[in-house]
Amino acid sequence: MSNPSHVVRFRVRYSDTDQMKTYYNARVLEWFELGRNELIRALGKPYRLWENEGVRLPVCEAHIQFDGMAEYDDLLKLTSTLSMPSRARFRFDSRVVQDATGAPVCHGYTIHAVVDTLGRPMRPPAWMVALAGIELK
Amino acid sequence: MSNPSHVVRFRVRYSDTDQMKTYYNARVLEWFELGRNELIRALGKPYRLWENEGVRLPVCEAHIQFDGMAEYDDLLKLTSTLSMPSRARFRFDSRVVQDATGAPVCHGYTIHAVVDTLGRPMRPPAWMVALAGIELK
Amino acid sequence: MSNPSHVVRFRVRYSDTDQMKTYYNARVLEWFELGRNELIRALGKPYRLWENEGVRLPVCEAHIQFDGMAEYDDLLKLTSTLSMPSRARFRFDSRVVQDATGAPVCHGYTIHAVVDTLGRPMRPPAWMVALAGIELK
Amino acid sequence: MSNPSHVVRFRVRYSDTDQMKTYYNARVLEWFELGRNELIRALGKPYRLWENEGVRLPVCEAHIQFDGMAEYDDLLKLTSTLSMPSRARFRFDSRVVQDATGAPVCHGYTIHAVVDTLGRPMRPPAWMVALAGIELK
Repeated sequence: MSNPSHVVRFRVRYSDTDQMKTYYNARVLEWFELGRNELIRALGKPYRLWENEGVRLPVCEAHIQFDGMAEYDDLLKLTSTLSMPSRARFRFDSRVVQDATGAPVCHGYTIHAVVDTLGRPMRPPAWMVALAGIELK
Repeated sequence: MSNPSHVVRFRVRYSDTDQMKTYYNARVLEWFELGRNELIRALGKPYRLWENEGVRLPVCEAHIQFDGMAEYDDLLKLTSTLSMPSRARFRFDSRVVQDATGAPVCHGYTIHAVVDTLGRPMRPPAWMVALAGIELK
Repeated sequence: MSNPSHVVRFRVRYSDTDQMKTYYNARVLEWFELGRNELIRALGKPYRLWENEGVRLPVCEAHIQFDGMAEYDDLLKLTSTLSMPSRARFRFDSRVVQDATGAPVCHGYTIHAVVDTLGRPMRPPAWMVALAGIELK
Repeated sequence: MSNPSHVVRFRVRYSDTDQMKTYYNARVLEWFELGRNELIRALGKPYRLWENEGVRLPVCEAHIQFDGMAEYDDLLKLTSTLSMPSRARFRFDSRVVQDATGAPVCHGYTIHAVVDTLGRPMRPPAWMVALAGIELK
């Protein structure tokens, strides 16, 4: 499959935990953000530059499945994959597993609109569509 | 309809915002938590007591639709509704709108397993099932 | 003493806890923000309007003493007091206790510069200085 | 000087920003946590193992000076230094600068008590005191 994909590893921070001794559910969306940020950087043009060119990718939908525990300081492996479900939508699929064992932690996706600096929907520029088709190893 | 439902109002905190000048996406899951916490309290037995009796309701699935902006200090109205999609699952539907105008901000749901203090799935006690059927005004 | 002071009550959220089963340290600064936000509102002109008039109060210094535990769902009482240690500085002293017992949870302060929309230091407008001298009951 | 010191680099996340387009103040305490976590790991015994041996280092005091802006995706350099101001206290001094320019972002410290699993103050074990005296490059 030709969708660009990227892996980052990170540790569960103390601030990610709650009193159930696993990660607090909302933190997953921060992890997903980390993953798509680094995927976009790997494509060759950091998201910050996208914003500088007047493009925003606000999240319009998010879904998470919580598959297993992850404790403070566990090393996690997050794989992010980019696709375009329609001409005006970006989708990032995210999967987090324990780096040591591969045990699933959580997975899900975020769907993003493409809007201009005033928040109005816009057709993605050609360079964005081209990036979404790049195959990363 | 007989599912218990509850409304809380709260303001967008500065800490909820990000540089797009609206609420950061992960914060919604903290709002949803606030809503279900107060719904459970309104049912007559705060969630803290559920945990004291050895029951946990970890989130196993979450879904969010982002419907509109909400700025710092906006007063929001969050409606939470409880249902049981199966014998061993609780579901909270959450809807956030601008309190002044009713303009939609976001909505979604969380699905919760019922587990014991060791994290093992358990049949919900009868009092929990009874609470889930209570009709609140 | 004539410095304006204000009280808010709030509950410890699940998202405020960490695996030590008390509040995570960084969350205190969000609580302090909540307190000063409501103090400023009680003075008669919400901070949002301050920003609309081109004034920003970025935090330039923060100090926290952690005095005791607070568990999920504990009802806390936060007292905020405003003063002006110099012509161009606002200071908020914050004190959090258990509402039920008065047991100390944490206290501290934040010191704020007064800057314009470009981040440049500015003399506080007269209305701001007047507000800082108001005595609230 | 003989106090152990350690450097980590990290990027400002979108979730770290607020509507002033710089990092939100509370996030600094999460960064400081990241720094001391990696400093402790570099000493040879991750903090998780400290907790496994029945020792906790709750923060009892925190201080932050906010020195300058940092925008989303900026690469920051955080230097953490460990010292023992008394027999029963650990102190971490933290300094964050822009990695590219050295421009100051924030600095401060956290002071930590040494307590057992019941939260009672305890004398730090000899291995902890020895670690605090190790000189890292």
